Amino acid sequence: MNPLPAWTDDDQMLAELKSLRRMFHQRPEIGFHEFWTTAKICEYLSRLNCTLFYGDRLYENFPEPALLSQWKDNITDRVGEDEHTLNWIDQLNGRTGVVAWIEGGKPGPTFGFRFDIDGLPIAESTEKTHRPFSQGFHAINGNMHACGHDGHMAMGLVLARLLAEQAPRLNGNYYLFFQPAEETIFGGKIFSKLPFVKGIDYFFAIHIGLIPSRDVICGLSFLADKRYQVSFRGRSAHAGAEPEAGRNALLAACVAVTQLYALSRHSQGASRINVGQFSADNAANIIADKAQFELDLRGETNAICDYLDRRAGEMIRGAAQMHAVEADMTFVADAETAVNSPELMQAVKNACLDIGIEEEEIVESFLVSGSEDATFIMNEVLRNGGLATYIGLCSPTYGGHHNETFDFDEDLLARGVRLLYQLADTIMDKPRGKI
Amino acid sequence: MNPLPAWTDDDQMLAELKSLRRMFHQRPEIGFHEFWTTAKICEYLSRLNCTLFYGDRLYENFPEPALLSQWKDNITDRVGEDEHTLNWIDQLNGRTGVVAWIEGGKPGPTFGFRFDIDGLPIAESTEKTHRPFSQGFHAINGNMHACGHDGHMAMGLVLARLLAEQAPRLNGNYYLFFQPAEETIFGGKIFSKLPFVKGIDYFFAIHIGLIPSRDVICGLSFLADKRYQVSFRGRSAHAGAEPEAGRNALLAACVAVTQLYALSRHSQGASRINVGQFSADNAANIIADKAQFELDLRGETNAICDYLDRRAGEMIRGAAQMHAVEADMTFVADAETAVNSPELMQAVKNACLDIGIEEEEIVESFLVSGSEDATFIMNEVLRNGGLATYIGLCSPTYGGHHNETFDFDEDLLARGVRLLYQLADTIMDKPRGKI
Amino acid sequence: MNPLPAWTDDDQMLAELKSLRRMFHQRPEIGFHEFWTTAKICEYLSRLNCTLFYGDRLYENFPEPALLSQWKDNITDRVGEDEHTLNWIDQLNGRTGVVAWIEGGKPGPTFGFRFDIDGLPIAESTEKTHRPFSQGFHAINGNMHACGHDGHMAMGLVLARLLAEQAPRLNGNYYLFFQPAEETIFGGKIFSKLPFVKGIDYFFAIHIGLIPSRDVICGLSFLADKRYQVSFRGRSAHAGAEPEAGRNALLAACVAVTQLYALSRHSQGASRINVGQFSADNAANIIADKAQFELDLRGETNAICDYLDRRAGEMIRGAAQMHAVEADMTFVADAETAVNSPELMQAVKNACLDIGIEEEEIVESFLVSGSEDATFIMNEVLRNGGLATYIGLCSPTYGGHHNETFDFDEDLLARGVRLLYQLADTIMDKPRGKI
Amino acid sequence: MNPLPAWTDDDQMLAELKSLRRMFHQRPEIGFHEFWTTAKICEYLSRLNCTLFYGDRLYENFPEPALLSQWKDNITDRVGEDEHTLNWIDQLNGRTGVVAWIEGGKPGPTFGFRFDIDGLPIAESTEKTHRPFSQGFHAINGNMHACGHDGHMAMGLVLARLLAEQAPRLNGNYYLFFQPAEETIFGGKIFSKLPFVKGIDYFFAIHIGLIPSRDVICGLSFLADKRYQVSFRGRSAHAGAEPEAGRNALLAACVAVTQLYALSRHSQGASRINVGQFSADNAANIIADKAQFELDLRGETNAICDYLDRRAGEMIRGAAQMHAVEADMTFVADAETAVNSPELMQAVKNACLDIGIEEEEIVESFLVSGSEDATFIMNEVLRNGGLATYIGLCSPTYGGHHNETFDFDEDLLARGVRLLYQLADTIMDKPRGKI
Repeated sequence: MNPLPAWTDDDQMLAELKSLRRMFHQRPEIGFHEFWTTAKICEYLSRLNCTLFYGDRLYENFPEPALLSQWKDNITDRVGEDEHTLNWIDQLNGRTGVVAWIEGGKPGPTFGFRFDIDGLPIAESTEKTHRPFSQGFHAINGNMHACGHDGHMAMGLVLARLLAEQAPRLNGNYYLFFQPAEETIFGGKIFSKLPFVKGIDYFFAIHIGLIPSRDVICGLSFLADKRYQVSFRGRSAHAGAEPEAGRNALLAACVAVTQLYALSRHSQGASRINVGQFSADNAANIIADKAQFELDLRGETNAICDYLDRRAGEMIRGAAQMHAVEADMTFVADAETAVNSPELMQAVKNACLDIGIEEEEIVESFLVSGSEDATFIMNEVLRNGGLATYIGLCSPTYGGHHNETFDFDEDLLARGVRLLYQLADTIMDKPRGKI
Repeated sequence: MNPLPAWTDDDQMLAELKSLRRMFHQRPEIGFHEFWTTAKICEYLSRLNCTLFYGDRLYENFPEPALLSQWKDNITDRVGEDEHTLNWIDQLNGRTGVVAWIEGGKPGPTFGFRFDIDGLPIAESTEKTHRPFSQGFHAINGNMHACGHDGHMAMGLVLARLLAEQAPRLNGNYYLFFQPAEETIFGGKIFSKLPFVKGIDYFFAIHIGLIPSRDVICGLSFLADKRYQVSFRGRSAHAGAEPEAGRNALLAACVAVTQLYALSRHSQGASRINVGQFSADNAANIIADKAQFELDLRGETNAICDYLDRRAGEMIRGAAQMHAVEADMTFVADAETAVNSPELMQAVKNACLDIGIEEEEIVESFLVSGSEDATFIMNEVLRNGGLATYIGLCSPTYGGHHNETFDFDEDLLARGVRLLYQLADTIMDKPRGKI
Repeated sequence: MNPLPAWTDDDQMLAELKSLRRMFHQRPEIGFHEFWTTAKICEYLSRLNCTLFYGDRLYENFPEPALLSQWKDNITDRVGEDEHTLNWIDQLNGRTGVVAWIEGGKPGPTFGFRFDIDGLPIAESTEKTHRPFSQGFHAINGNMHACGHDGHMAMGLVLARLLAEQAPRLNGNYYLFFQPAEETIFGGKIFSKLPFVKGIDYFFAIHIGLIPSRDVICGLSFLADKRYQVSFRGRSAHAGAEPEAGRNALLAACVAVTQLYALSRHSQGASRINVGQFSADNAANIIADKAQFELDLRGETNAICDYLDRRAGEMIRGAAQMHAVEADMTFVADAETAVNSPELMQAVKNACLDIGIEEEEIVESFLVSGSEDATFIMNEVLRNGGLATYIGLCSPTYGGHHNETFDFDEDLLARGVRLLYQLADTIMDKPRGKI
Repeated sequence: MNPLPAWTDDDQMLAELKSLRRMFHQRPEIGFHEFWTTAKICEYLSRLNCTLFYGDRLYENFPEPALLSQWKDNITDRVGEDEHTLNWIDQLNGRTGVVAWIEGGKPGPTFGFRFDIDGLPIAESTEKTHRPFSQGFHAINGNMHACGHDGHMAMGLVLARLLAEQAPRLNGNYYLFFQPAEETIFGGKIFSKLPFVKGIDYFFAIHIGLIPSRDVICGLSFLADKRYQVSFRGRSAHAGAEPEAGRNALLAACVAVTQLYALSRHSQGASRINVGQFSADNAANIIADKAQFELDLRGETNAICDYLDRRAGEMIRGAAQMHAVEADMTFVADAETAVNSPELMQAVKNACLDIGIEEEEIVESFLVSGSEDATFIMNEVLRNGGLATYIGLCSPTYGGHHNETFDFDEDLLARGVRLLYQLADTIMDKPRGKI
């Protein structure tokens, strides 16, 4: 390993990471609306020795155009932007996200690193004990980086700078994916279709937070997830005058809910079923002709999730038949689960030890009972013979993920950059599959 | 009206009625097993001037033989019978029930009177306050005339005697139907197919008990009824080891039950839904592959009952689909409702007044929330242009119908016979439809 | 019967009725917001020889002030009113409804007539086939008189004029109740507490529409009604990460709904149960901590409605316990059923015949499967020894009650006025209870 | 390790094992009825140099006599027994099971080995492909050793012979528990209370079958289990005549079942819920006043099982309240889960390697989705400072556990005996907790 540049001294690199993180923190944009965010990423990367793919260049000839169809005409608020940023936004041509490509001086494996860039529609806390507020870098646009993606972007940009500067002496080449719309589990599926993904040998995703410690997790697993909007259509009737003429969509929906939760447990692993939202809006004295709810199904494996999916469909159609109404399930979103490559998990462990992380702080694996769409990219890499793992960069989160008081320890961002760089540096000399 | 014979003086006729009622009361036989009962009826009637139809003579050339199919090989206990009764039983050739035909001296309308003859599988009370027990005429064979059919038979036989004796001076002819298997709502449907029924101009059924008073009801209505055995077949699996491999028939059946009761009320009248029996017999740790229950549906009109029938089928198939199991509905029994002819209801009222019943004791109509299979015969009469009504001969019932302490006031049997005879006598001169 | 004034000739009276009806039709106001409507009624009545009770004079010393509490600060739109109407609105002091008192020239019984005055929040049809639209008197304020209250008011005002003009020769005195908020079943309960009600000997309510015929119904019955807002409170939790920590309010509410419909039928008459509106608004991946629905319970008798009420409470508390959540039932509204006095029903029949209605057009009684709050007033009259009946003035309704194309035959308004006047005129000489 | 006796040569020991296994296989006895079985075990052991505890000597002064209360008056069929066996049966005095104590020549740790002895109420297959049938040693008494307990007993007896013969040279002493009633998860709880258990340093249970391989599993885990008989009591009523008077126990039970399955998944591990048996026996036209079902709850940890237990109670009480009926839960049986001691798991692995089992055939741990009551004994040992593990001796099982064609490879019985002996021999020199 060659000496790193001076700015990677602890203080300087951390200062840059914090500055970037806080810039992004103040202006979160929700999934598929990350125009300003993408512009700022492009602006930073454009000063480095790397190739950028964004806007039409990124999405033209996209293999499954239907996937992109829900993502257009998102109007971005251009008020108050400087000329330079506006110029970048214009170049995006209505689509967010960017991929940076850095070519090493010598041939070697192809690396992929993924950083997600979207925020959440949560109003940030203005309590004094919430550090972003008390230190004046909280968001005021109604959205919030309440899941650490601001930190992910900061790590991604600084890693890009480091790789770009060290490129001449590196064997291999590096794709850095700045992915939109993770929270809505949409962007990962789209990015998994990008042509660069097929050629990746070693792929890493990283997330900050998770366990309230300073551990590093070598392989995070997630639940596979499927979401549907389920709607029932019956026939309204006056509930007093002629109830038998009605076909009660609300009652059918309630029956479906009560039994969806009763779908059998699966012997091969955890499953989850939830209905968090339900609505029917007829008057009190009218048999409801419409009712709808949102269904969330998860499984520890893709097969378990598929099992729930198939059985939930039977459930819903059966409940509709019971009350002689019609049911529709509209797909909302899904996420896969991915199996982390044991070789890369081991490589993460080794890299941790290399950069001075204590063995007690290294956790082999952890199942997160949430969902992630980087798994789509991981599975595409795995299907094409590459290896992949999802790293957990643990940090206290104060209010917890997706809470209005979410925060993390910024010092850990430097640990993240060093770990990812160390992985690139260590693995680069090894032929595919021989790490 | 001509003078009646001496034995119809209050005391003598009542003594005969009581004697007959108590004879039948001591030996109740359940539906399609009324061999001794039928034999005793034949024995009595055979001494009168009337024509009897029983055994092969009654059922040969029956238009829907399938209806008779469940009614064979009922073995009767012949122990302890006298020769004469045994002889009658032999002539029944395995089928119970008898029709008596009495022809008047002059032409006139055709009357039908129906009396049901079966008992119930109820062990009779041996409490001192239960009169049949304290007076020594209770049943000891495990069955019980707990619905008054013993009294109905007594009235039918005495009415036959009266009509037969008065026949020379009567215009018209008279069918007296001694019908089996009313409690299981089977016999009425069979009797409705008998060829005699089509020609009847005026049809009367009568029931004792009902309202705890001494009123006479001119037109009793009943709920239409459909009964099904519903069974679910799924797939068993070890509930611990591989629950997802099971298809839970028990759970599907429970869902069906919870929603069958939730079938919509009907604006056109009363409806009833019940599941009184349910069984599933797998071990505690096995997903149940079989479950079954018995479903009882009733409606104030045949249309309401049909509505429930159609919707219950959707319910059950839907519940099966929800849990990916199969469902079958096996028809068990049904009963129709019938609309009493207003002209005959008026005739009943007039006849009541004629025989000295006070106007305050005459009730126009009453809806019984039970079922009756005389309605099949009534509807067949009505379809063929005749008139029909179902008379209620109210009496205190002490324990209530179908209760082990059921009893009634025997004095009222004389009132019943007089009323029916009065109807025959009054109407006989009137052409069809002009009463 | 004395000669009536010239203006009650068919054409003139009908012209006045139509003119009034169409004026009200163009400006419907929903319950407790009938300020302009009340002002117009007051304006008309103030020209007659009668005493008016409105605003503070009507509601001061109201015996149950809590009942009035939900009815304040309803701001009325005063734009575009003429000075005179504005003056009346000011005098209402924030409360709608008016009672007119007309005193006859000689002592006699006290009569009450009730007319409801509120409209519905329904946008009126603008189809060419809808007569109010094609003839240019439809409403354009988003509300609609889609239940005929415009016609009721027209009849009430013309009846008032007739009674006031004939007063010198009449025995008795007459209260005309112009009642607000019938549609929300609130105003009737309030009016039933007015001190005038206790003294009424003969009370009549009247409704147009109902059966699509030109019949008159002597006694309309309604279902008793109770409405509740039912809310469940549980505990939210991440449905993937820690589902067992949640207490699922949505699931409890669904269980309650599925079983509320399964509440047992009642042998004493019709019952109705409905849930038309349901909402829960958590995210798809959150166990719902809140859910609510609106429950509507009806019974053919007050006792049946009370039975449903008691059982529904057990149901809801039980469902909450099943899922370890809390449930609350907030009373929304209720309506009673009332038993029409047979003597008054007979009086209505006689009055119909007197004014030339054919016997075939007179219907004794009819059960409406809806609810009415005039029943509160009727029951108060009955409790104080008076008689009451609810008259149905049948008319085709085109689109049906509460439909955007509702309309009725205006000619029938004259029939209504004549009938009510005839009742007053016929009964006035008879002492209480001797009609 | 000293030389073993000649009869432990592969062929001879296996012949003895087979002979014993086949003897037991032909005469299975269900839980708490293992009189003949216990007699045969005693007969064999009585010829060895060991101390036996059975009958009164085993159960007198039992610390929780209530536990024994359900186990008396089990009449054993003595027909056809020889004198000697009958004599042993008499000495059992109505209670089955036996403990053998073998004392080594030198002081050392105390070992416990558990073998279960009961069969299942399953009729054994008479298909030609079922080896016990084709080779003539199948059971014909309606019961079956369909879970391998016949093999367990054979291993236990041969291990006893080996330990008894080698005793003079062994440090330590050895308890062999021949436990009744494992299938009904009753006997383990009883044996866990025996005074010998508290003093055990190293405890081993062993099971044959499981994974269809020839692996050895060093630590088997089981689900914790609780079983209840749940009964509902309501009030019967005629479903047609007066349904509202009923309190529907069947409907309440169905609601409970539908929601018990919907109890939330648990983030800490697997859970299972099942209702395999349900009964209600009213007539079709009677609202059911009684209904009952059997409930089986399981969890991967005792805490999860307790969670289900607590929530199921709320569910059942809530369902009862919904339908205004009473509910009772009667405890039927339970089983705990136990955490295998890592030190003993390692010792099993070492012993496997010692006796020549390949590393690939050694499986560290395995979760069985069934229940076991040896866990009660294990937990008692662990609570008292000892170590415990449950060994899996894998074998193909042909039809699967509890299936009428269940069988296993008898050759593996020798592997089992050698492994257990090796464990005793290896560990004996090590002080408690220092293996």
